[in-house]
Amino acid sequence: MNTQNVVIGVDLGGTTIKAGVVSESGTILYQNKFPSKADVSPSEVIKQIHASVQDALTHANGSTVRGIGIGAPGMVDDNGVVKAPPNFAHWDEVPLKYEIAKLVGGLPVGVENDANAAAIAESKFGAGVQFPNFLFVIWGTGVGGGIILNHKIFRGPTGGAGEIGHISIDYNGPQCNCGSVGCVEAYVGQRYLSQRTAERLKSHPESKILTLVGGDSSKIEPFYIAQAAHDGDAIAKEILVEAGSLLGVALAAVMNVMDLRISIIGGGISASGDFVMQAVKKSVQKYVLKPLKKDVEVIPAKLGNNAGMLGAAGLVL
Amino acid sequence: MNTQNVVIGVDLGGTTIKAGVVSESGTILYQNKFPSKADVSPSEVIKQIHASVQDALTHANGSTVRGIGIGAPGMVDDNGVVKAPPNFAHWDEVPLKYEIAKLVGGLPVGVENDANAAAIAESKFGAGVQFPNFLFVIWGTGVGGGIILNHKIFRGPTGGAGEIGHISIDYNGPQCNCGSVGCVEAYVGQRYLSQRTAERLKSHPESKILTLVGGDSSKIEPFYIAQAAHDGDAIAKEILVEAGSLLGVALAAVMNVMDLRISIIGGGISASGDFVMQAVKKSVQKYVLKPLKKDVEVIPAKLGNNAGMLGAAGLVL
Repeated sequence: MNTQNVVIGVDLGGTTIKAGVVSESGTILYQNKFPSKADVSPSEVIKQIHASVQDALTHANGSTVRGIGIGAPGMVDDNGVVKAPPNFAHWDEVPLKYEIAKLVGGLPVGVENDANAAAIAESKFGAGVQFPNFLFVIWGTGVGGGIILNHKIFRGPTGGAGEIGHISIDYNGPQCNCGSVGCVEAYVGQRYLSQRTAERLKSHPESKILTLVGGDSSKIEPFYIAQAAHDGDAIAKEILVEAGSLLGVALAAVMNVMDLRISIIGGGISASGDFVMQAVKKSVQKYVLKPLKKDVEVIPAKLGNNAGMLGAAGLVL
Repeated sequence: MNTQNVVIGVDLGGTTIKAGVVSESGTILYQNKFPSKADVSPSEVIKQIHASVQDALTHANGSTVRGIGIGAPGMVDDNGVVKAPPNFAHWDEVPLKYEIAKLVGGLPVGVENDANAAAIAESKFGAGVQFPNFLFVIWGTGVGGGIILNHKIFRGPTGGAGEIGHISIDYNGPQCNCGSVGCVEAYVGQRYLSQRTAERLKSHPESKILTLVGGDSSKIEPFYIAQAAHDGDAIAKEILVEAGSLLGVALAAVMNVMDLRISIIGGGISASGDFVMQAVKKSVQKYVLKPLKKDVEVIPAKLGNNAGMLGAAGLVL
């Protein structure tokens, strides 16, 4: 008899946990959704992860489960200790790998930072399959990243590598929440981009963006900017092109230092349209060194919201 | 009988070639100097390297020569092909490893980029011995770098990693010779720093820097700025502190992305004084992510002008 090998991939978010039964080829055979209870306590979160894994296991339908992979926000060290995930209450350092391994007796458990997990997913199953080396960027609420070298994730000495959101693209630039100034995230992260857009629309009251949010500029989100751009609003398109160009400055820095040619970009804002990808690419080409210019590629990610779960599965596969 | 193992280390520069007999512990037992003839042709340069190696071999005094290491400007690929070294005439891509190996029949030959070689030297014999992971910076005519991970050089996918000089620290900054804008080298590289200083001294005619260059601001060099600072000239000190701060912005970007805590800085300008190192450190601490801040160290390199030769030797040791 021929039983299929599967892995349980878990995507731990601030609001929900998604766990899935994933085949070796990256097909999601089943998936669930549990509240993560991140606002309660680490032990509640662990219980919820365990519940989602148990549920997934009962749906593995006689396949051989090879292990459990978890993608988590925050920094993840080599021992699977998760440090200071944003928006998780009372969570300083939690040995998540150890805690989950205790509960699932015997199965191998892997834990990785969520942006790194998404990078792994794009490398194994998505837009990066044919590229041994690339920078993966997740452009949404924040700007995160993961670096794939020789088809493997580059974690750096303590697991913190890939933090591209806080590269300063102007040493005299605006203050970032992180304490530094001019961080690329302080220009193009969702909240900052929305604020900057609201500011800019004061002199463009005709913009369709304002129509879409019913005139309430505090409701502006990249989603509406993208929709307005799609509907032909010139200022909306200009704002997104500028955001893409600014993102490109930071990507070029990473590509220069790490000798990379390819960036794969995921996250909500990146899906605004091909013209945004083109703006990022043009900017990267301007800011990278000559030997890299002709080979630069900026490619949209393929796996969307499932990248985290698939990458988590990829940790064990 | 006990014969010592030695290596021939070669530092190929635009003007001179230095070759040395280097012991396994990094002691230079003999060293020579030949003109590199970089302005003539690659074949002349190869002849000169061969001559310097031959001379060093005759001074190995019965030691067992384990191989020949060469540090070269330009990009060096995994096969020891040296690409487009600046100021080398008619030099596009030259298989230097192959050419030298032919001439020295049988001895192993290693070729590495010169900044990488210097990083290797600091790692094996210098300021980096106790640090498994660090960023090495060479701050002189240009701003170059080499990245040490787990005591080894990180070359990147094609050997081009460590190019920190062309990180843009202001996407709207001054034009750089490389074609990009706002590159850190366009602020703090020797020529740019000298020009910027000349410009600034127009409103500071009392500065000792001008006295040191006999009133001719076209003669300004970092060496004189450092000397004036040493003699108590306030504006000179201010200029160097500002340069250190700007350099720190780029170093922080690399340290964030690669999860590094330590920078080791060599090159002429870095030797201006401890206050410059302090300025770099303060800036790095401002621009790195919180988890890195408390561990940041900025340390002067130890090996000075011999780092290239020692690192070249280190390629074979």
